[in-house]
Parts: sequence; structure tokens; C-alpha cells
Amino acid sequence: MEKWDSNASTSAFHVPEWMIQFADQKQEFNKRPTKIGRRSLSRSISQSSTDSYSSAASYTDSSDDETSPRDKQQKNSKGSSDFCVKNIKQAEFGRREIEIAEQEMPALMALRKRAQGEKPLAGAKIVGCTHITAQTAVLMETLGALGAQCRWAACNIYSTLNEVAAALAESGFPVFAWKGESEDDFWWCIDRCVNVEGWQPNMILDDGGDLTHWIYKKYPNMFKKIKGIVEESVTGVHRLYQLSKAGKLCVPAMNVNDSVTKQKFDNLYCCRESILDGLKRTTDMMFGGKQVVVCGYGEVGKGCCAALKAMGSIVYVTEIDPICALQACMDGFRLVKLNEVIRQVDIVITCTGNKNVVTREHLDRMKNSCIVCNMGHSNTEIDVASLRTPELTWERVRSQVDHVIWPDGKRIVLLAEGRLLNLSCSTVPTFVLSITATTQALALIELYNAPEGRYKQDVYLLPKKMDEYVASLHLPTFDAHLTELTDEQAKYLGLNKNGPFKPNYYRY
Amino acid sequence: MEKWDSNASTSAFHVPEWMIQFADQKQEFNKRPTKIGRRSLSRSISQSSTDSYSSAASYTDSSDDETSPRDKQQKNSKGSSDFCVKNIKQAEFGRREIEIAEQEMPALMALRKRAQGEKPLAGAKIVGCTHITAQTAVLMETLGALGAQCRWAACNIYSTLNEVAAALAESGFPVFAWKGESEDDFWWCIDRCVNVEGWQPNMILDDGGDLTHWIYKKYPNMFKKIKGIVEESVTGVHRLYQLSKAGKLCVPAMNVNDSVTKQKFDNLYCCRESILDGLKRTTDMMFGGKQVVVCGYGEVGKGCCAALKAMGSIVYVTEIDPICALQACMDGFRLVKLNEVIRQVDIVITCTGNKNVVTREHLDRMKNSCIVCNMGHSNTEIDVASLRTPELTWERVRSQVDHVIWPDGKRIVLLAEGRLLNLSCSTVPTFVLSITATTQALALIELYNAPEGRYKQDVYLLPKKMDEYVASLHLPTFDAHLTELTDEQAKYLGLNKNGPFKPNYYRY
Amino acid sequence: MEKWDSNASTSAFHVPEWMIQFADQKQEFNKRPTKIGRRSLSRSISQSSTDSYSSAASYTDSSDDETSPRDKQQKNSKGSSDFCVKNIKQAEFGRREIEIAEQEMPALMALRKRAQGEKPLAGAKIVGCTHITAQTAVLMETLGALGAQCRWAACNIYSTLNEVAAALAESGFPVFAWKGESEDDFWWCIDRCVNVEGWQPNMILDDGGDLTHWIYKKYPNMFKKIKGIVEESVTGVHRLYQLSKAGKLCVPAMNVNDSVTKQKFDNLYCCRESILDGLKRTTDMMFGGKQVVVCGYGEVGKGCCAALKAMGSIVYVTEIDPICALQACMDGFRLVKLNEVIRQVDIVITCTGNKNVVTREHLDRMKNSCIVCNMGHSNTEIDVASLRTPELTWERVRSQVDHVIWPDGKRIVLLAEGRLLNLSCSTVPTFVLSITATTQALALIELYNAPEGRYKQDVYLLPKKMDEYVASLHLPTFDAHLTELTDEQAKYLGLNKNGPFKPNYYRY
Amino acid sequence: MEKWDSNASTSAFHVPEWMIQFADQKQEFNKRPTKIGRRSLSRSISQSSTDSYSSAASYTDSSDDETSPRDKQQKNSKGSSDFCVKNIKQAEFGRREIEIAEQEMPALMALRKRAQGEKPLAGAKIVGCTHITAQTAVLMETLGALGAQCRWAACNIYSTLNEVAAALAESGFPVFAWKGESEDDFWWCIDRCVNVEGWQPNMILDDGGDLTHWIYKKYPNMFKKIKGIVEESVTGVHRLYQLSKAGKLCVPAMNVNDSVTKQKFDNLYCCRESILDGLKRTTDMMFGGKQVVVCGYGEVGKGCCAALKAMGSIVYVTEIDPICALQACMDGFRLVKLNEVIRQVDIVITCTGNKNVVTREHLDRMKNSCIVCNMGHSNTEIDVASLRTPELTWERVRSQVDHVIWPDGKRIVLLAEGRLLNLSCSTVPTFVLSITATTQALALIELYNAPEGRYKQDVYLLPKKMDEYVASLHLPTFDAHLTELTDEQAKYLGLNKNGPFKPNYYRY
Repeated sequence: MEKWDSNASTSAFHVPEWMIQFADQKQEFNKRPTKIGRRSLSRSISQSSTDSYSSAASYTDSSDDETSPRDKQQKNSKGSSDFCVKNIKQAEFGRREIEIAEQEMPALMALRKRAQGEKPLAGAKIVGCTHITAQTAVLMETLGALGAQCRWAACNIYSTLNEVAAALAESGFPVFAWKGESEDDFWWCIDRCVNVEGWQPNMILDDGGDLTHWIYKKYPNMFKKIKGIVEESVTGVHRLYQLSKAGKLCVPAMNVNDSVTKQKFDNLYCCRESILDGLKRTTDMMFGGKQVVVCGYGEVGKGCCAALKAMGSIVYVTEIDPICALQACMDGFRLVKLNEVIRQVDIVITCTGNKNVVTREHLDRMKNSCIVCNMGHSNTEIDVASLRTPELTWERVRSQVDHVIWPDGKRIVLLAEGRLLNLSCSTVPTFVLSITATTQALALIELYNAPEGRYKQDVYLLPKKMDEYVASLHLPTFDAHLTELTDEQAKYLGLNKNGPFKPNYYRY
Repeated sequence: MEKWDSNASTSAFHVPEWMIQFADQKQEFNKRPTKIGRRSLSRSISQSSTDSYSSAASYTDSSDDETSPRDKQQKNSKGSSDFCVKNIKQAEFGRREIEIAEQEMPALMALRKRAQGEKPLAGAKIVGCTHITAQTAVLMETLGALGAQCRWAACNIYSTLNEVAAALAESGFPVFAWKGESEDDFWWCIDRCVNVEGWQPNMILDDGGDLTHWIYKKYPNMFKKIKGIVEESVTGVHRLYQLSKAGKLCVPAMNVNDSVTKQKFDNLYCCRESILDGLKRTTDMMFGGKQVVVCGYGEVGKGCCAALKAMGSIVYVTEIDPICALQACMDGFRLVKLNEVIRQVDIVITCTGNKNVVTREHLDRMKNSCIVCNMGHSNTEIDVASLRTPELTWERVRSQVDHVIWPDGKRIVLLAEGRLLNLSCSTVPTFVLSITATTQALALIELYNAPEGRYKQDVYLLPKKMDEYVASLHLPTFDAHLTELTDEQAKYLGLNKNGPFKPNYYRY
Repeated sequence: MEKWDSNASTSAFHVPEWMIQFADQKQEFNKRPTKIGRRSLSRSISQSSTDSYSSAASYTDSSDDETSPRDKQQKNSKGSSDFCVKNIKQAEFGRREIEIAEQEMPALMALRKRAQGEKPLAGAKIVGCTHITAQTAVLMETLGALGAQCRWAACNIYSTLNEVAAALAESGFPVFAWKGESEDDFWWCIDRCVNVEGWQPNMILDDGGDLTHWIYKKYPNMFKKIKGIVEESVTGVHRLYQLSKAGKLCVPAMNVNDSVTKQKFDNLYCCRESILDGLKRTTDMMFGGKQVVVCGYGEVGKGCCAALKAMGSIVYVTEIDPICALQACMDGFRLVKLNEVIRQVDIVITCTGNKNVVTREHLDRMKNSCIVCNMGHSNTEIDVASLRTPELTWERVRSQVDHVIWPDGKRIVLLAEGRLLNLSCSTVPTFVLSITATTQALALIELYNAPEGRYKQDVYLLPKKMDEYVASLHLPTFDAHLTELTDEQAKYLGLNKNGPFKPNYYRY
Repeated sequence: MEKWDSNASTSAFHVPEWMIQFADQKQEFNKRPTKIGRRSLSRSISQSSTDSYSSAASYTDSSDDETSPRDKQQKNSKGSSDFCVKNIKQAEFGRREIEIAEQEMPALMALRKRAQGEKPLAGAKIVGCTHITAQTAVLMETLGALGAQCRWAACNIYSTLNEVAAALAESGFPVFAWKGESEDDFWWCIDRCVNVEGWQPNMILDDGGDLTHWIYKKYPNMFKKIKGIVEESVTGVHRLYQLSKAGKLCVPAMNVNDSVTKQKFDNLYCCRESILDGLKRTTDMMFGGKQVVVCGYGEVGKGCCAALKAMGSIVYVTEIDPICALQACMDGFRLVKLNEVIRQVDIVITCTGNKNVVTREHLDRMKNSCIVCNMGHSNTEIDVASLRTPELTWERVRSQVDHVIWPDGKRIVLLAEGRLLNLSCSTVPTFVLSITATTQALALIELYNAPEGRYKQDVYLLPKKMDEYVASLHLPTFDAHLTELTDEQAKYLGLNKNGPFKPNYYRY
């Protein structure tokens, strides 16, 4: 069983400031009166539950129904009202979206098929808090098919697809989520998932850690019955390691964020496509001949650079890590400091996970029409706040596209107000989400079925063999044919014919 | 300090068969009479000391001097005769090759400069056993400039550049090596390095483990003074882990084979270039439009595939590992079983590290003029032995190029008799060797200067910070400018401004 | 002066059938009663005036204003009512779109600046018939700045951007165009441009040949004053060659369709980007690992193949021309017949200019979820009509996306109903349109100012020097610095230092 | 039938200076005493007969046979002595090289097969003057198989492969050529080909125009029986146009240099590979991360840039032609003036066809170790002469590699002394030569069989249909399957089903 060496991890990542900030924010929030005032909130919703999605305004349905779902009485066709969605009548449209998604999620469908005999999640009571999309729906319905009971809330106040939520509610899933929740709604929904009479979760599937946090705060006793937590996000994983280090993690947790398939596929391959998509949808720009600087050459930066280079852009890279920097060089990119090229580039893309990578000073020096966007992390990379000064005029020219205008007429084209371009302005291919969702399902199965003692109160990486299994489930999509080792070869290599095929430190 | 988890490594790599075979070979060898018969040999030279280089015949100088260097009396211009090389008079030509190499090894030259004040290797007595090339010479002379005394033998009987050995001997290094050593010569040279009156090594730099093995066998007491072993090769590293597991490793050892810079740069970037170079030099073939199958999609396979795709070849990939297989798919290669495409491809390239990947059955089914070569490992990947049957005719058409002719006239073009193409038929860019050599130098410095207790009798990976340092020393070659974290950013990320910048499990 | 050799062209392109069909259609149309019946129509609008744009339904503004613009009384702020647009009040929004476009059309803006002194189009009265977009507006206002008077209609009943038309009308241009014109409206608008009291055009700028056709039919005497025609489209150019061959072309005409900059830039570079954009916007698919067949390896096919290969798709090509086929091979694509791969591919893209390249038989054999789209020509390449049979169900899943469902449940994803994907489902980068628009402006200037006798009643290609001039005007966008020949070098090469730099037959 | 418009060509290419220079050289040469003095020479051998190949010294066989072939008595095994080669005994080795070449020249082999029945060249008496290589041998033996009699000389004093010449002589071809001819030998060999008793050529195959020139000078009456000239080189083609313009061309000539297959394949695809090969073989450099400037973005420059970009180099381009410049921009290269980057680049590559593109001033400003080479034209592009000054030291470090050393120690690495890198330092893939050779064979067949009057005393391009035929003969190598037009499609496009498929002006 693979496990993060917490010392190693500590030496590399001391407690980051933004985690501390997060705690501060929480305090501050408590002082703020809630918008609605009906219910008290113990803390602000986390950064991850609001970042990366545009303001509600630009996403809200044109629907003129202003009634809060919490104030509506809705029943699905079977008479159940154990859910809270925008409009149960949108279920049919949502169902079609789910069916389309199913076609691109072959691995989950394969899991369903294999599970027809045995039900590896029989008895599992899973409470989940994720984005509510067609792909999540395929995951939930797969968990159901594997024997689990599920209750679900959204991990982001803007990201719920109301139609999909309706379809899930219609087919009997207790879903509590809608697009444009207030912060109060957010916690109310989560609470409705866990605070149920006669039902207590024994598994947690979280994305960002808010659900886990809520149970810790409100229902700590629940952990006695919980067999494990599966967490997907960077933020949530960090929180778990913090808990672990503080000795407060009282159940095993599975970090699916750092699985190979998620890291390499989600970040590298997905961003390779979504950078082009996001830029095109917002600006219709031509890539050929454009000068671009990409800040950061991790997996995301590598994907962005590869795509733009292939489309005929001239790409510069900035890096702080000399190893990644040397990779950028060998891949054919000039490694510069941002200041060296800031006056000449047509596009600035941040992929660092850092804060204030693009400062007001940089913005002041950019040339007219320069496009600025963030592919990295949260909304911290570009110092957008520094642009909210009186001498600059903001002009919204399209959804997700602002012109920030300097007194001399210079315009900077800011995308998604500095939030994640790929989440705000492009779609994520279902196929990539399929990889992550399958990993989540397998992690739940593993934790739920693990013999006593295999997992302690710690944070674990998915066993490599499961990573390999997830990958193998996705190969048929490409009509890809794996070679099998002969007995003789397996013996020669000292490997089991069924894997795992690589040592843990293998880098891919 | 980073260290391989030996369990993890065991679970992935049980003792491989070829290690056991190796031991058997040794036994067998002892029974064989030596060619010359003058000296007894305790064991055969290892696989790595003969593989990857062509038969002596095709490499030997046209020089008609048949006298064994061991029978010659040579002195350098300072009167020393503590060396044994082919011809000390070739020193000048060798010196020029060393000077050319220095220009592409900026990091070692920078180390020399920094070391002018302090001598971090003052007092070090290093015995080394590596390929003797211009690049090794730059390393050795750097170690000398850092304060060390060195004695050196070749790790491969064919790979010594006689002129370089002469230049080293001329400038005072006790070097014992020439191209075309016999097996007996090989061990004699090693012995001359360590078996010296009044000098005892305190550091070992090994490539393949033969030197280490010899000291274990013959002079086990020497280890009392030895502060550590630095080992570069896969084979040598495996041997060290074996020793460690058997509880027989009595000094700390540094595994530089698995450092990031070596893995990613040596394998990926170097093979991306050398596959093209090796194929061109041997066959003058055109890449455009050719159908190629690459067996194995590790770093080497990735490099080969990227290069050939870029040159207009149509590339198929075979894999046993579903994760690498999925990467191949996402990178745009059809994943097939070898049998599916063996009849149609123009080139077969093995990069698996496995044995008998290309069998006689495959060879029988290839089309006329198909080129077969090995970029992976040793000489096991192609079952060359199966081609040595009476019905097939071998025709050597050029150095390193054989036509194997079937009764019906079909010809297979076999390169380097199935040994490593990139070592046999192309050159390795100095710049890549610079990365490895710098890593070796730093590993020696680290082990030599480490405070008591930092390293135990175990095998260690280079600390990440040193990996980063090696990379940073190579950036100026590309006029690459690294960005520095601000204090605020470092705090936000929880990082030290000087690195290390990534957790140990980061995959690059 | 360059000129098509009409014999050469004839031998290659005999009168194509679709031109004859077109004439037939015209006859047939005359028998059809017009929808509105108010005005008589001499002929149907041409193929090009309706193809490539989606059905009005999916594009029409949500505006509920159903009144025909022809029935409205509108005045711009200066009191003029010599225009007919959807809604003059949308002028401000349109102006902003024009301003954004200006930033990506540097060459036209440079022309405006240079023309401040002299007015090379002073006295020109240009009647135009093109798509009415922000980019056209920049062209029109440039022509105005150069001294011309313009009157304008739309060349396509669906493509007018109403807001832009309003902005042009507001700033004084007599524009007659709106999105969703009827066929009757179409001709009425054209007529309003030319049939004006006290104003007679002396230049024609046409896109598709409908305007030219109308003047031939209705006002043949007008040609006495007309100095030339500038035509952009394949269709329009073919019509002109037909006229020329029939001896009926009575003024010089400039074929800008076959200028290098248009052919290479519009087709190759633009399609390289728009294929990705079009597929993403309609299907959100992932490109990595997908198997794609591209029918036709001309400039458009080359662009599509390069982009998809770069994004990790596996691309097959079909071709009829062995030279283009050999290029495909050398560029690394398997050249196949469509039948060989039709069962296995995930996407089929047509770029041939031909008809029925994808037949019902092919469609029957495609696998479930296969995406089918057309990047080539008109709507003929995919036999969409063959899919309108009772056993197949059509389901519109998104705008421009239909699922065609076979009785066994298999779904084919048909994009834009087989019309041009890049026009229907993606946007064309302004920068590319800038190249074409600049070429048009220069062609108008050349024809208007040419000394008597330079051009006869024939079809001409733009002089190479002008092609080069257009290119040079676009270089500053890329901060690109051209090298100048020294006198000595120019003499050596036998070239004028200012170009033209290549012989006419140069292929680029 | 396609024909160059000589006016068009004149307007673009006035008589270039180097042609005039050439004539001057000739005069000058006549005054020089010949080295040997035995025979008088009417003029110097042309530029093309000496450029692009390294000095004889570095290529000459190690063979110590210093006797001139002209002074030897040799007979082949059939007793014939109508040839003059270095050593008839090398025939067997040459035959093997020819057989290897045959495998990569499928089109010629196909022609041989088709010609078994009819002999389209029966009665043809072809005198040829080309490089004598294995590929030429395959061409000659094909011409023989088609019914022709051939006599052959070399077009370059250094390029003959003696073994191949021997093999041809052995199988009965009167060949007069060896490596390292003197200028006198050169003309003597040509004369031996044409000045034969009882045999008079009726076809000429020339490469550079020297053979044609010799016949014009010495045996003008021979042209009465000559049916045509096929010329391959830029130089030779220019000479033919000169003759034509001067009214002195007395037979039809076919320009195969400007055929599509030669231009696009020889230049683009071949240079894409040979730039890498040439740099590696001479310098063993690593491409990744290197900064390169490529002067000229024609087909050769495009090939070089594409290859180096793919290998991870950072590539800058210089251009004089704005259209090619814009292509460079769209392909992702920074367009600069040489001066802008000369201080920072690691490699300078010229591909312009111009002279003094790299001047002494540039060379003075390059950084240490900068590599300079020429892929373009002749040996004029780099001002090598300017480096032959006393303050600079030349050091030959390898064959074809000179270090030019500045007083301050800076070294420039000059490859092939500024001659063509791809000819001097790499091999040309047989497959590319196959395309050219097939084109030559077809041109000979066409001219020989053309009905009276089809060709006049002018210079012609190969009919497009033949270009297409050459391409189609090479498709089977790639197992490529061409699609055939249906009758309906052919009618729709106005094309013959068998081609030609494109108008003459099509750019590919």
C-alpha cells in the first residue's frame, strides 16, 4: 500500500499561507451578517466552492423563476420529495445529457456491468459533495448500481446543472443543489445530506473538503461509523494532510488528486485542449504567429505550451524550478523572466498555483489588446484586485471577457476575471472526467471493502494497481490492445503478469 | 534525505531473473579457460561491460600495432609510467577532443571555477570505472580540480577512446584502459587501479558495478576506509539493492541512475535525437511516410515516438502497462499488439527493457527490407540468437548493419546485432552526458562531506535539492532566466525560496 | 501582369456540372411562385448566398420584432433614411464590434493612414455585395476613407450581423441587409444598391457573383461606366471565367480568390484552427487518441490534419490526386480509401470540394457516436439527403448538432447538417479576414487607377507585387522584421529590391 | 502542354549576375595554364560540377593507387574496354550497393516491369552526364531495360562512387568517371561519351548543362539527330532558358527541376531530414534548447525549420519576401533580421540561394562555438573568403568541420567550408532520388516518343499528368491507397477520372 511520507511532504510543503488565510477568512466571515439572515453559519464556504466559476449573473438561466428552491414544494414522479433542486420538470432534458455522457464514460459503464452479479458497495451509505454535472450523475448512478445509497450536495454554488440535478432527483437520488446558491443555501444543502433521520453515512466522497469540514464541526460522532473519505481536490487533500498532521484525522482518507491518471491526464492532456478552446470561445483570436508567455511549466503549463506551439504561436515560459525550467528549454521554449517579454507578448497565461504572478506593474507594461488569463489555480495568480482602481475603466464586452482600459486608451483583455479559464470558458471533455470518476468509484470500493487494519487514520494514495486498472478500463475507447507478458518475460522482469508494472517512484 | 523504500521497490521488482542468470554465468565462466591463460579470473566481466558496443573487430583502429598495451613500456612527458593506455603519443589529439567537450559541459566548468577557493574533495581518493571518453575526462579533471586524487579503469572493453586515455595519462592521471581489452585485461586494469602500494581509495565511482564487485571479492577490507559508492547504471544500482537487501552493503551508496535529470533528460530527450541519428547513419533511410512500431512507451519509447512522428513516420506502439498505454493513445499513437502490425511495418524498434520482445516468429513475418533495432536494454530484446540458424544467411553490408536473408530472398536489416543502437551507431550529445557527470560529481561531494550519520549502509537517491542544482547549472547554456519567488509567494506556497520546489513524489 | 491561361484552366477544369446545374436551377426557380408574391424574381439566389450558414431558425435573434425591415421607417441620427437594416438602434453595439475588429485589421488601418494625403479612390462609386460583418465594415469604412462612395448589400441571407449593419447605416453608409432575408428580400436589397437616381456605380466588389449577375440581367448598360469587378469567391470566379470564355465579360475582373495570401492563409492556417474550434464548440469532444479520417489533402485538408495530429488524434487521409497523396504520406498520414477505415473512425471530415464523398453506405457502416462534418465546400460533400429516410430518426441535441439514429440505436453525430463547419460552428479569426479584405481594397485601387489598356475584358490574378504588399502590411502585427536585399544581392539574383521576389509559378 | 512563360520568368528573374560571372570565369580560365597541360580546355568546368562536394583530399579512397584511370588498361569480364573507371575489380561491391538502392526505387523497378513487352526507348541513344551513384545506376539500367543505349560521364569531379562506376562498366555500360577527376579529366570523360565512332546520341540527359555545353561547342551538328534534352539542375535550366531567349536552343528541352515532385519532395521533405543528419554527423550536437537562425523560408528553409522545431530548438527566420515571411510567422517562427539574433544563436543555417547572406561582420559578432552551415545554394551564401585572413586561425577538427579561431579565442564551427551541408555531410535518401530519377526517365520517354510538332525548340515543364504519374508510382511504397473518382464525381468536378487533377497554377 502506497502512502505519502508525511515528513517528505512537510519538508517540501510547509503549511502554506493560504491555508492559514483560509482560517482567518472564516473568522471574518462569522462577523458578516448573512444575506438572508435566517440561518447561522459557522464559517464561510471555502475558496474552492466559489472560485473558478463566473459570477452567478452571467450563468443564471434566463428563467424568470426567482423563487428559492428551498421555498418550493416539489415531488418527483414517484412521489418522493427528499431532494431540493431548481425545477424537477427539467428532468427529461437532464436525462438526455446524462445519456450522452454515458457514451464517453466507458469505464463506469463497464463497472456497472461487472457489478451486476456482486454488489461491492452493498450496504454503503455514501454522502457526496461534488460539482453536479452529467458526469457526476453517471458516477452516482454507477455507485447506486454497485449497491450504494447516496445523498448529494454541490461543492460549488455556481456549477450545478439544474437539469441534471432534476434528472437525478427524478430517478430517486436525494440531491440538494442548484445553480446560484447563496452561501447559506450551500451549507443548508450539505446539512440536508447528512442530517437525516434514520440514515447515517458510512462513506464520504468530497471535492474541496467542505462536506468533511461540516461533519467535523457539526456531527463529529458520525465518524464512528464512517469507513473512509475519498477526496479529489488539491485543497481538500491539503486539508486532510493538515488534519492528519494535527492528529485529528479519525478515519482513513484516500487522496485521488495525486493518482497518476488524474495528474497526467487531467492536467496535461486536458489543458492541452482546453487552453485553445477557452481562448477561442472568448476571443476568436488566431493563434498563428502570436507571442505567448506561459507562467509555470508543470503539467498544466506543459499542456498549454504544447498546444499553442502546435498551433503556430511563439511561446515563452517562466519558471521558478530549475528542473521544470530545463524541461522547457529541451522542449523548445525560451525561458524568460516575465519582465523580459511582458511588453511584447499578445497573451499571458498563468499556470503556477502561485499568487500575484501577474502584478499590476506587469499589467501596466503590457501592450494594447494583450489577453490575460489563468489556467492554474483559484483566482490568485493574476492580481485582479489591483485593476479595480478609479483610473481604469472596465468594460464587459462579452460573457467572461472584460476590457480593462487605461487612461491612454490601452485595453487589456481579461478573461473570466482571472478565475480558471478552463472551468469558466471551456468545457472539460467527458472522457477526462471519466478517468477521475472511475478513480473515485474504485477508491470508495477499496476503502469500503478493505480488511480491518489495511488502512489507518491517515491519508493514502490509490494503490498503483488500481491506477493501472482505471487506465485499462479506458483503453477500449481507443480500440487499444495491450500486450501481455509471457511467463518467461514476467520472470525475467520480476513482475507479476497482472501488474503493478512500475515501482512507486516511477515518473511516467 | 530521500531514500528508496526497499519494500516498495521489492514489491514492484522482485529479484529479476537476469540477476540470477548473471550469477550463473559467472560460475560458468570460471570453468572456461581464459584466452590468454596468463592470469586467473575470478569471474566473467558483467553483461554491462560488453553489451551495447559492437564487436571489437569493427571498431579497432586501423593501426597495425598489435602489441598489448600491457606489454609496452610507456612514459608520459613528466616521466610517469603509472598508467596503461594504447599509445601515449595520441595525447594531443585526445586533448583537443577534451577541450571540445569542455565547451558543452558548462556545469562542470562552473564547478571548477567555484571550487578554486575551497576544495570540497581535498583528501578524496577516488577510484573510478566508467566509459573512458572525452566527457569522462572532463569529469575526472574536474574532480582533480576539486581536490581529489583519481585512478581510473574502463567499464567496457570496447568503449575506451584511446586518444582520450592517452591525454589523461599525459596529464598525470593513472588510467588503465584501451579499446579492445580482453576479459582478462579488463580485470587486470581494475586491479591496477585499486591494488596500489601506499594508496587506498576512499570513494568509488562505478558504472555497472564491476569495480565494486572486484573490491568486495578481493579487497573487502578496503571498505573500512571507503566513505561511499556512487553508481550510475541500472545494472549497478540493482546489484547495490541486492547487496543492501542481503545486508551486505557496508558503505552508503548513491543511486544517480534514478535522479530526475538523468531519467528525463538522458532517456527522453537524448533518445528523441539518437533514434534518428542511429537510423540515418546506418541505413540512410527516409523517415517520411515510413511505418514504425515502437515496443515500449517508457521515457525511451516516448522519445523515439515523438521524434519519428515529427519526421513524418506513422508510429504504432506496444505496451504492457495500461497507464503508459493510455499515454500513448493520448499522444496520438495506435496501441497494438506486435502481431497486428508486424507484416506491414518498415521499422521495428524495441525500448522495453524486457527480453525476447521480438521473436523469431515475428522476424519470420516481417516484410522484405524491414529494419530491426534495439534502443532499450542490453541485447536481450530481439531474439538475435534465433536468427543464427543454417537456413538464414547473414551478410554484413556496412559496419553495424547486417542483412539476414531468408531462403525466399527476404532480407531483414538488423542493426548493431541487436545491441543498443544509440550506443553503437550514434553518438550521445555531450550536453546530456554533462548532466549525468555533474550529478556524479555532486554525489561524490555529498557523500564525501556528509556529517557522520547522515547516510547509513544503504542506497540513497540524490537529494532533490541537488537534482535542482544540477539543472540550474545547465540553464545558462540556454541563456535561460529563472524566476525567483518573492518572500510573499514563498510564504504563500510554503516553500523555501531556494528550493526544493517539489514534493518527492512529483512526476515532472 | 499575371493572367490565367484560359486553355490551361480549361483542360484542367472543363465546365463543371454544378455550374450547369446552377443554370438549370435558375430555370426551375422561375416557375416557382415566390413566397411573398409581391415582386418578381428573375432567378433563384445562388448556392453561395444560402450555403454555409445554418437555418435561420437557429440564428435568428430572440427579438420578437417580426416586422420586415422593408416595411419599417427608420432614420439615422443625421436624418438619412437611405438604408434598410433590422434596427438602427443597435448601432452602438455594432460600433463596438467594429472597433474590436479594427484592432486585428492592421493593414486596412495602415492603408487609411497612408491615404490621408492622396485619395486613391476619389471619385470611385463602389457597389458591394458581401457578408455584412464587423470586418466588412472595417473594409467599407477604409474604402470611404480612401475617397470612395459605397452602397452595400449582403451576399448571404443569413450572415448579416444586424448590429453592424445598423452601425454602418448610422455612420452614413447606404446598407441594405439583415439576417434572415427572404429570397425576394435578397434581390430587393441588391436592387436598392444599384438602382438609385443620380448615382451610378463604377466599381463592383462581389462575393459569389449575384450582384454582377443582377447588373448583367437588369442594367447591362451600367457596365459602360464600370471600370472593373473584384470577385472573391470560388463560385463567383468560376462564373467570371464562364462569361469570359463565352465572350460576354465586358469589363476587367480581378480574381482575388486565387491570390497566394488568400489560398495559403485562409485555407491552410485558418482551417488549422477552425477545425478544432468547430468540433469543440459543438461536441466538447476530446481530440487525444481519437481516430479521424480527413477526406482530401488540399490546403484545407492539410490544415485539418496538422491540427488534429498535433492534438493527439490518429489521422487517416483519402485523396484522388497522387501528388497530394504523396504529400500526405510524407507528412505522416496513412493514405486509405474511406471504406478501409469507416468502421473504426471516431470522426469523418470532408475537405474535397467534391460531392457525395460520404455516402449513405458509408454512414450505415460508421460506428456508434461517429461525428461527421464538412470543412470543404458547399453542402454537397456529405450525402445528407440520403439520411432523410423514414427508418432514421433525427434528434437535434444542440444548435448545429443532430443525432441521426438508426433502428438498432446507433447514433451518428451530424454537424451543421453537412454545411461548412467552420462557417456554421466556429468563428473566423479577424486577422485572416483582414488579409482578404486588404487584398480586395488593393484590387479595387489597382483596377480603378490602372492606365487605359493595362487590363482588358478578361479575368486577372492580382499582380504578385500586390500579393507581397498585402503580406507586408500584415507583418507588423507579428513584430516581424523583413530583411532587405543589398544592391549587390539584388543584382546577383536578378531581382528588384522591392520585389516581386518570386516567379509566377512559385508554389510557396 | 505546360510551358514556362519566358516573359513572366524574365520579369521575375532578369539575367542573374552569377550567370554573367560564370561567362567571365570561363574567359579567365582559358588564360590559366592547365595543371597537366596535356590537353587544351575550352573552358572551366561549371560551378555546379565542383560545388557541394568537399575537397578531394577528404574523400579520396585510402587506396594508394595513384595511377590515373586514363593511363590504365582495363577490361570487363566480357572483354569490353569501352569505359574508364577507377578499378573494374570493385564491381561486385558496387553491384551490392545498386541492389540495395533498387529496393528503395520502386517506381523505376515498376517501369522496368511494365516495359518488358514494349520498349518505349528502343532505338534511343542517350548520352548522360550526372552524379554517378547507385541511384543513377538504377536509372541507367532502367533506361537500358526500356530499350535505350547509354553512355555516361560524371557531372561532378568528386561525386562518383568508384565501385558503382565499376559495376556499371562490368555490366556493359560505357561509363567514364571516377572520384577526383582533374578538370581536364572531366572534359575528357564527357568527350569520350559523345565522340564515338559509329554511334551518335539522339537524347541528352544532363545535370548542370556541361554536357549540353560541350556538344554545342564541339559537335553542334550532333543536334540534328537529337530529339531533346532533359535537364535536372537549377543551373542547367537557367542556361537552357538563356539559350532559348538568345534563340540558340535548337531542340526541345524538358525542365525537370521545377516539377512539383522534385520541388516539394526534394527540397521540403528531404531537407527536413538532412539538416538533422548533417548537423549530427559533423558535430554530435544536441538540438534540444538550441537557438537557431534559418536564413530563408523557401521549401528548404521550411524543411529545416520544421525539423529543428520538432527536435526542440528555438528557431528564428530571416526573409526578404513578405509572403514567405508571413508563412514563417504563421508557422510559429520569429521573423528577425540576422543582426538582431546573431549574438545569441547557437547555429546559423543559410537557405536563401543568395550570396553573402552571412558576412564577416556577422561572423565577428557570433558567440563562441556558434555553428555555421549552408543548406541553400552553391558556396556563396556564407562569405567564407572573408575568413581567410591572417588574424584568424583555421583548425580542421574533423572531416568537413573547421574551427575558425579569433584572436580572443572565440571559435566558429564552419561546416563543409560553406558548401552544401546536405551534399557534403549527410546522405540523400534513395527514395527522394527515386522521384527525380523516375521523372527523368519519363521525360526522356515523352520527348523521345512525342509526335512531331508537340514540342518546339523551347524549354518545357513536365506535363502535370506525368508529375502525377511519378507520384502514383511511389505510393505503393507506403501501402497507400488512392481513391478513384466516380463518373458522377468526375462530371461534377469537370475532371477526367485519370487526371490531371489540378489546374497548372495549383500550389500544393
